[in-house]
Amino acid sequence: MSESLPTDSVGIVTPQTLHFDTPISLACNRTLDQYSLVYETYGTLNAQASNAVLICHALSGHHHAAGFHSSGDRKPGWWDSCIGPGKPIDTNRFFVVSANNLGGCHGSTGPGSNNPETGKPYGPDFPVITVRDWVKSQALLADRLGIQCWSAVVGGSLGGMQALQWSLDYPDRIRHAAVIASTPRLSAQNIAFNEVARQAITSDPEFYDGHYYQHHTLPRRGLMLARMVGHITYLSDASMGEKFGRELRDQAYKFAFDAEFQVESYLRYQGERFSETFDANTYLLMTKALDYFDPAHEYDNDLAKALRKARCEFLVLSFSTDWRFTPARSEELVSAMISARKRVSYAEIDAPWGHDGFLIPTPRYNAVFRAYMDRVAREVGA
Amino acid sequence: MSESLPTDSVGIVTPQTLHFDTPISLACNRTLDQYSLVYETYGTLNAQASNAVLICHALSGHHHAAGFHSSGDRKPGWWDSCIGPGKPIDTNRFFVVSANNLGGCHGSTGPGSNNPETGKPYGPDFPVITVRDWVKSQALLADRLGIQCWSAVVGGSLGGMQALQWSLDYPDRIRHAAVIASTPRLSAQNIAFNEVARQAITSDPEFYDGHYYQHHTLPRRGLMLARMVGHITYLSDASMGEKFGRELRDQAYKFAFDAEFQVESYLRYQGERFSETFDANTYLLMTKALDYFDPAHEYDNDLAKALRKARCEFLVLSFSTDWRFTPARSEELVSAMISARKRVSYAEIDAPWGHDGFLIPTPRYNAVFRAYMDRVAREVGA
Repeated sequence: MSESLPTDSVGIVTPQTLHFDTPISLACNRTLDQYSLVYETYGTLNAQASNAVLICHALSGHHHAAGFHSSGDRKPGWWDSCIGPGKPIDTNRFFVVSANNLGGCHGSTGPGSNNPETGKPYGPDFPVITVRDWVKSQALLADRLGIQCWSAVVGGSLGGMQALQWSLDYPDRIRHAAVIASTPRLSAQNIAFNEVARQAITSDPEFYDGHYYQHHTLPRRGLMLARMVGHITYLSDASMGEKFGRELRDQAYKFAFDAEFQVESYLRYQGERFSETFDANTYLLMTKALDYFDPAHEYDNDLAKALRKARCEFLVLSFSTDWRFTPARSEELVSAMISARKRVSYAEIDAPWGHDGFLIPTPRYNAVFRAYMDRVAREVGA
Repeated sequence: MSESLPTDSVGIVTPQTLHFDTPISLACNRTLDQYSLVYETYGTLNAQASNAVLICHALSGHHHAAGFHSSGDRKPGWWDSCIGPGKPIDTNRFFVVSANNLGGCHGSTGPGSNNPETGKPYGPDFPVITVRDWVKSQALLADRLGIQCWSAVVGGSLGGMQALQWSLDYPDRIRHAAVIASTPRLSAQNIAFNEVARQAITSDPEFYDGHYYQHHTLPRRGLMLARMVGHITYLSDASMGEKFGRELRDQAYKFAFDAEFQVESYLRYQGERFSETFDANTYLLMTKALDYFDPAHEYDNDLAKALRKARCEFLVLSFSTDWRFTPARSEELVSAMISARKRVSYAEIDAPWGHDGFLIPTPRYNAVFRAYMDRVAREVGA
């Protein structure tokens, strides 16, 4: 039935899993003795293994970035707009790898996985993971896939942080880093919103200090609240206004506490759906990874100093109405790259959707991204 | 011991209570048969009763706007910076009235008060209150105090909405309305944040559908979360950054879920303190009053049309870094006032503190506010 899929789709894709049994030491000074990573690939690795692109996902993302899991699948992967034949990350030219991060809840080893030492889910005993740990595990994945050097590591938001970290930790294994709708570190306000999300989850009585698996329950309300807060920060005030305004679900005010405005029922629905499909402990881990990310920290808070060891070229993109990671945050990063004498291309994309802009195709976003990736492809002979 | 109080303070003040036993009909089509309002006054009403100023409070505010409750009281009223001898609202000239709103939790009848019909607290059975209802009850309070016409009605945020509503509902009883850090109606994003707060409260298992009084408990966690979210929206990203940055409580990352960054412990502390002093049902009512406020609604969403019936003069102030109710929202209001041929003075105050700017004195804010109120005083012979 793949005939019915869009012609610019990578088509039906099948996730794969690799198991690692060499212990990996983590930034928190703990070790995972063994773990699995689930990933998808799109396109074909060329003979020189020079055309590989790594996609890094954001807070609630996963390995399924493009294509469909079956012919009946109604929704493609989360970045299908950018990955596929003829798309900015052109799968006719690139071999694309997209893995679920360690600590995730979509197949890679995470808090919901069984801890081999106890035979029970890790839960809150899963180590706190950092962006650097993810990059390390992705490098081990690259080894197994025979990829010595990525033509590009690409990501939006928390994914952009991974792309940036790649440039610092494996300067010889990455030619280009695309850091999209991201920031070199969270602001106090960003951390504050994450803390609200964490408090919502951990104060849910169904959370059981993270051991909810054994109690056969889920901290649904807490995760729902966390997602609602997050969702607001992903959208712009204007796009929420455009989408919902002050539209009522019914004609008149009800003077009660049901969802009355469209935006309320939308948020509740999104929150509820998310709370049934995402793992609360993973959510906690992801927010912590965001908070901790700060490559300048160990370089006297001098980002340019941190960037000196990078050898790749950079693409930085920001979105005009993104108030979570504003264009100013990308410009900080770009300034530091310039100070560190790195080659960097920067564009602020004019788009109304706030932080979510990086997921939504627009002509200029598409054109800029495509032009950059075309140059990457030509460089590596793809 | 009043010698030790600041000389520009109204000094020690004593709240007063008025009981009303004529039923008041509310916008929700329900009636309160009897109720009390607690209020404070500062200064002296002149013989013509022409120098009265009404202060309207915001979401978490109350009647105690200025002065101290005792000589040992460490904190003055919430707007002490603007109310007192020689201050913008000069109590040497004005008679200032500040009441706790109906539905409040600081002495006026609210969800925590006993319902005379049942002998138990109203709880969730307390009627949903609107800005218009507050204005109505304030007019009845004015009657009892012998005030036919306010020289000014003044408020910030939700208080500014009340000042605006006064101009529409009692055009002959108000000479000036000062609408500070406010908006003619909430945006979808504003409503969304309120909805998160409400969901946090109502999903707290200690909430018991609002009947927590009978269960001798409080929905502390929910109210704490609500306050944390609110608090973030009251501050600017820059002021949070200035105050907390990414400062850690300890030297190094702990890779755990305790509060690590200063901003986390600050928010937790603020949230916890609030949750012990504020009533959750009142919080719900206040957020609903905010959501519903929309004077243009019954005038084909034409704010200028709604404003035509106003006869007072307006002062509108906004704060440059307020992202909850941005200067653009105040400018909408000012434009509508100009379209409606009203007299309006407008200033955007450059201040770094976000929405909270209206509570924090700065030279320009002080000067503009003082100059306007000086004119009001001279007009009424005060």
